[in-house]
Amino acid sequence: MNLEDLNKDLATKQLAGFWASNITGNDGDVIEPRTTVVPYLWKWDDIYNGLLQAGELVSLEQSERRTIRLLNPGVPGTTGATNTVHTSIQLVKPGEIAKAHRHTLTALRFVLRGGGAFTTVEGERFTMHPGDLILTPQWTWHDHYNGTGENIMWLDGHDGPLLKALEVMAVEPFSQKQQPVEAMPDFSLHQFGWARPPEQLSEFPDPPFRYPWETTYESLKALASTPGDECDGVLLRYVNPRNGGFTLRTIGCEIQMIRPGEKTRSHRHTSTTIYHVFRGSGATIVNDQRIEWSEGDFFTVPLWSWHQHENGNKDEAILFSVNDRPVKEAFGLYREERG
Amino acid sequence: MNLEDLNKDLATKQLAGFWASNITGNDGDVIEPRTTVVPYLWKWDDIYNGLLQAGELVSLEQSERRTIRLLNPGVPGTTGATNTVHTSIQLVKPGEIAKAHRHTLTALRFVLRGGGAFTTVEGERFTMHPGDLILTPQWTWHDHYNGTGENIMWLDGHDGPLLKALEVMAVEPFSQKQQPVEAMPDFSLHQFGWARPPEQLSEFPDPPFRYPWETTYESLKALASTPGDECDGVLLRYVNPRNGGFTLRTIGCEIQMIRPGEKTRSHRHTSTTIYHVFRGSGATIVNDQRIEWSEGDFFTVPLWSWHQHENGNKDEAILFSVNDRPVKEAFGLYREERG
Amino acid sequence: MNLEDLNKDLATKQLAGFWASNITGNDGDVIEPRTTVVPYLWKWDDIYNGLLQAGELVSLEQSERRTIRLLNPGVPGTTGATNTVHTSIQLVKPGEIAKAHRHTLTALRFVLRGGGAFTTVEGERFTMHPGDLILTPQWTWHDHYNGTGENIMWLDGHDGPLLKALEVMAVEPFSQKQQPVEAMPDFSLHQFGWARPPEQLSEFPDPPFRYPWETTYESLKALASTPGDECDGVLLRYVNPRNGGFTLRTIGCEIQMIRPGEKTRSHRHTSTTIYHVFRGSGATIVNDQRIEWSEGDFFTVPLWSWHQHENGNKDEAILFSVNDRPVKEAFGLYREERG
Amino acid sequence: MNLEDLNKDLATKQLAGFWASNITGNDGDVIEPRTTVVPYLWKWDDIYNGLLQAGELVSLEQSERRTIRLLNPGVPGTTGATNTVHTSIQLVKPGEIAKAHRHTLTALRFVLRGGGAFTTVEGERFTMHPGDLILTPQWTWHDHYNGTGENIMWLDGHDGPLLKALEVMAVEPFSQKQQPVEAMPDFSLHQFGWARPPEQLSEFPDPPFRYPWETTYESLKALASTPGDECDGVLLRYVNPRNGGFTLRTIGCEIQMIRPGEKTRSHRHTSTTIYHVFRGSGATIVNDQRIEWSEGDFFTVPLWSWHQHENGNKDEAILFSVNDRPVKEAFGLYREERG
Repeated sequence: MNLEDLNKDLATKQLAGFWASNITGNDGDVIEPRTTVVPYLWKWDDIYNGLLQAGELVSLEQSERRTIRLLNPGVPGTTGATNTVHTSIQLVKPGEIAKAHRHTLTALRFVLRGGGAFTTVEGERFTMHPGDLILTPQWTWHDHYNGTGENIMWLDGHDGPLLKALEVMAVEPFSQKQQPVEAMPDFSLHQFGWARPPEQLSEFPDPPFRYPWETTYESLKALASTPGDECDGVLLRYVNPRNGGFTLRTIGCEIQMIRPGEKTRSHRHTSTTIYHVFRGSGATIVNDQRIEWSEGDFFTVPLWSWHQHENGNKDEAILFSVNDRPVKEAFGLYREERG
Repeated sequence: MNLEDLNKDLATKQLAGFWASNITGNDGDVIEPRTTVVPYLWKWDDIYNGLLQAGELVSLEQSERRTIRLLNPGVPGTTGATNTVHTSIQLVKPGEIAKAHRHTLTALRFVLRGGGAFTTVEGERFTMHPGDLILTPQWTWHDHYNGTGENIMWLDGHDGPLLKALEVMAVEPFSQKQQPVEAMPDFSLHQFGWARPPEQLSEFPDPPFRYPWETTYESLKALASTPGDECDGVLLRYVNPRNGGFTLRTIGCEIQMIRPGEKTRSHRHTSTTIYHVFRGSGATIVNDQRIEWSEGDFFTVPLWSWHQHENGNKDEAILFSVNDRPVKEAFGLYREERG
Repeated sequence: MNLEDLNKDLATKQLAGFWASNITGNDGDVIEPRTTVVPYLWKWDDIYNGLLQAGELVSLEQSERRTIRLLNPGVPGTTGATNTVHTSIQLVKPGEIAKAHRHTLTALRFVLRGGGAFTTVEGERFTMHPGDLILTPQWTWHDHYNGTGENIMWLDGHDGPLLKALEVMAVEPFSQKQQPVEAMPDFSLHQFGWARPPEQLSEFPDPPFRYPWETTYESLKALASTPGDECDGVLLRYVNPRNGGFTLRTIGCEIQMIRPGEKTRSHRHTSTTIYHVFRGSGATIVNDQRIEWSEGDFFTVPLWSWHQHENGNKDEAILFSVNDRPVKEAFGLYREERG
Repeated sequence: MNLEDLNKDLATKQLAGFWASNITGNDGDVIEPRTTVVPYLWKWDDIYNGLLQAGELVSLEQSERRTIRLLNPGVPGTTGATNTVHTSIQLVKPGEIAKAHRHTLTALRFVLRGGGAFTTVEGERFTMHPGDLILTPQWTWHDHYNGTGENIMWLDGHDGPLLKALEVMAVEPFSQKQQPVEAMPDFSLHQFGWARPPEQLSEFPDPPFRYPWETTYESLKALASTPGDECDGVLLRYVNPRNGGFTLRTIGCEIQMIRPGEKTRSHRHTSTTIYHVFRGSGATIVNDQRIEWSEGDFFTVPLWSWHQHENGNKDEAILFSVNDRPVKEAFGLYREERG
């Protein structure tokens, strides 16, 4: 029997020999982290116009959610912006209800347009204004209602690609279209305030929460007078309000200001990031590729890619981003190198 | 513009509408965790004979490692036994060296045949006898040397499929074929003994370690007189010797005795398990499928499948297994139901 | 030799026999936690008038601090209100500086009278208004300056008695009277906000911090509509802003509202509490003793004493308190029983 | 009113002014940790002979325990060797039972003479041989029985002084003289082995456990070929078998070998240590005081004292010790300086 025959024989038994190649590649080369995700820029106008047209063509009776997903050209299939974290943009029109359900998938909303609609999570109503971040963590009931007279649009981030890889996606519809609002206004702010009830009613390790834009922006502006991070400018991480850890166990959310004239130092790390340009314009150089972005755009920086940001304008640029760093950190797989 | 046109237009911009279907399936059905992994049995004779033939046909100069992988019919591609954890069986012949390297992939060896060969991890030499479990965690230098006169075979478990999904696989060859042995005999046993140096030399959160079969078996036998677990018989988890946590941050290793005449209660959970029959024979019922196993075989129980074990014989049956429970637990995604 | 001679002989060698008595007392009685601390009420007028007189008689050149300590009649010596936690009340007159130093002792300030003076901690200036809580944790430089035209008085809580028992008290004077103010306004609020810099500049596990009265009171009022705790009414714990744990590693700070007409259920626990009546009046029954308190008073509830609070008035009563529960919890020594 | 009058007036109200002195001493001196504990040596012969005589004069009917306590000349009262940790030596004669009870006090036994007696903790019987360490943690039922033909003597260490300071001492007698033995032999070794049942039966955070001398000594000997610690020679810490942390939450136990000819570097730290000379002889220099010790002796090194060990002999010296470092670490109060 020769090797080819052995390979064939093994295949019939759902076995496969590992002897085709050296693990370390040709002649013992080092192998570094590799991703199929490619740097990519999605323009706001395309997303915005697409959503408006979808608003005409698709009702929330037809589709539980009306969203447009970012697809990365490098990711096989058609459902994700990266291998771990997904981003789409959602439209809820005046008077519409995106009905209540819950899932093992952990999600977040960052509000882009409109103001005054509600996301209800586990009985608590969170008002949505541009720049607000709202968490709908794993297995929390949630629904959205736009009682205002104008469209509302927001970024949906979630860990769907990771959960798909881990094969633990589960979904359950709520018995009614909307869940009842049972919590007092600002319940979670009081529950997770600096002075808080010792026994917390919420038992979710990643709790539902709303980070209001005003306080986020206030910190960004105040810290703009400090040196900031040489690779990231003035960067804030949204923390778990219970314990100060990562935003969510599977997703990190960050917001950063690239100040007028600022050009950051290049670095690379083993987490992947999807950025949204919340304010201003500028450019990010990813390896040898220059991505020019302006307000409303989205772009991705794949893991282990050298990247740096610059803002050549007179106005501040503000980038909101979601990343999979908590997943990498959980297993000791996060590494960073500075250029 | 109709919806079809919009879909086409979006596609040109790497965007995709989510309005094809309800998340919760037809008419609001509940969706439960689903896996493509199928229950499967691999027979020892096939593996053993395949390895012996490979021993004739493949040298360790040609291939860094000589292993046969278990392929699950339900997992696309050709590299993994499950979506998160991989198992293969390795042969090192008398006089051979499986050369030194390290990788971000975390691995373990459970010895099946032979005795007295060495695995060297981070300068410490671990002798390999049947039933011993040896850890070669993330980024630890390791190589194998069979200085005995007989073949040695062992089970290789690793988190390659997970690391592939996370895109953080990195590999580095050692400058020489073998790393020097620098540690005293039983160094890690002393370092992680009940009385141990306060400042540990090893800085690996998951440290290199060897769990000798004698002590494992002694505990199994002693605890056989207790009721054990109704779903798992007498089950032991190999713990991280540093802190008593999971065996490794990405893989759990367990060993269990199904006692003569024992039939366990059915349960299901969101972790996937690959079993090796180390001693005896019996059967595992996975959903409606009965898997009859005997010494040396391997089989898989996919996540969220109801399963129970039985041993209708007069001799004890011992199952060694690897699972992805630590990964599920890390994100609050582990659930169990008992039948 | 008889037993008496043996006892004498041992004594000369710094040895002592333990054979005088049964550990469990006469005939095997159970022994329960016992404290020498007794329930006690200190009246605000006594403290206030004493401080005003001290303001005339003692300058901050003579004494680094001008404070009046609460002495518990049951605690031997003259320095503590309890065996673990100490409370005193401090006066800084217009134009005065209480000079800069640091110590291993962990302290906190809860402002009682005045407004607009400063406590500077590790280069950050914290403005002091009634109801504000300010932390000056272990080994942080701190000084106080009253630049306003009116007296300022505050409660000083610290773990001096515990540190004395542990014999680790250390103190260091600053090179100048006042430390320079180097941090921006609200630095710690930005550093420990919901969105915060990932790399914190402050390395103190218990960080300097100010809890403004407005947000504390807002939560108290909002949660007044919930059932609250049956033994404690509407109770909030000030949490470590870094990680949501106890206020300080050695001291817990809490604030609670006893609502008009509320009478709480009796309980007892192995932590000792010193209360300050910040607003309103009412009574606390400690074992068989009734303590009638009104605004400004201080009182102590010793550990393992049954106690309950009542507010027979039309106005809310608000109690600020410090306790040693974190110390008891650290060693698994906290127990609670409800009547 | 003058200051003296004010002081008197305040005293009548259980108040005391703090204005006698500067916190930082004369002219702003630095204050360092100070202890009243003094270095002291207790000779084995005194203890041994005292115990034998007590064996004649005191029965276990008269006194629940027959122990001789080490009293430090610097510690007020008559019950402790230090401010936090207590040590005494116990004798149980052939046929005697030291009856069952439990207490909030956490204790340990280090066996000195005899062999084959039993300590039963929470239903598990632990055989006692010289060099074995046995834990009887907080609130675990325990009793001792000497079924052998010879006296047994052991060191009792416990956290009584700390619990007294914290006022949480509680004791409960068992309903019978001895508790029933319900656990299999070596139950805790199996429960906390490298491969262990995932659901532990023991719920004590500090579990009952026995560290056999053979394995301790084996590690000491093996590690004697390594450089060891420059201040402590070859030192091992007994770890919590559940999680690798400190021996007990309130007490650390260590064992160290000072090798023939070894002289360690001087250091000081904020924990206090009581040493027992288990093997050999040598000297410890504490500040300017030289303590010459030989087998069986006990001695104390007070906190923040410079100390170093030397062994001028041809045989190894082995010191067993108990310390309060876990208490200091719990609050960030542990500091070390090397000379």
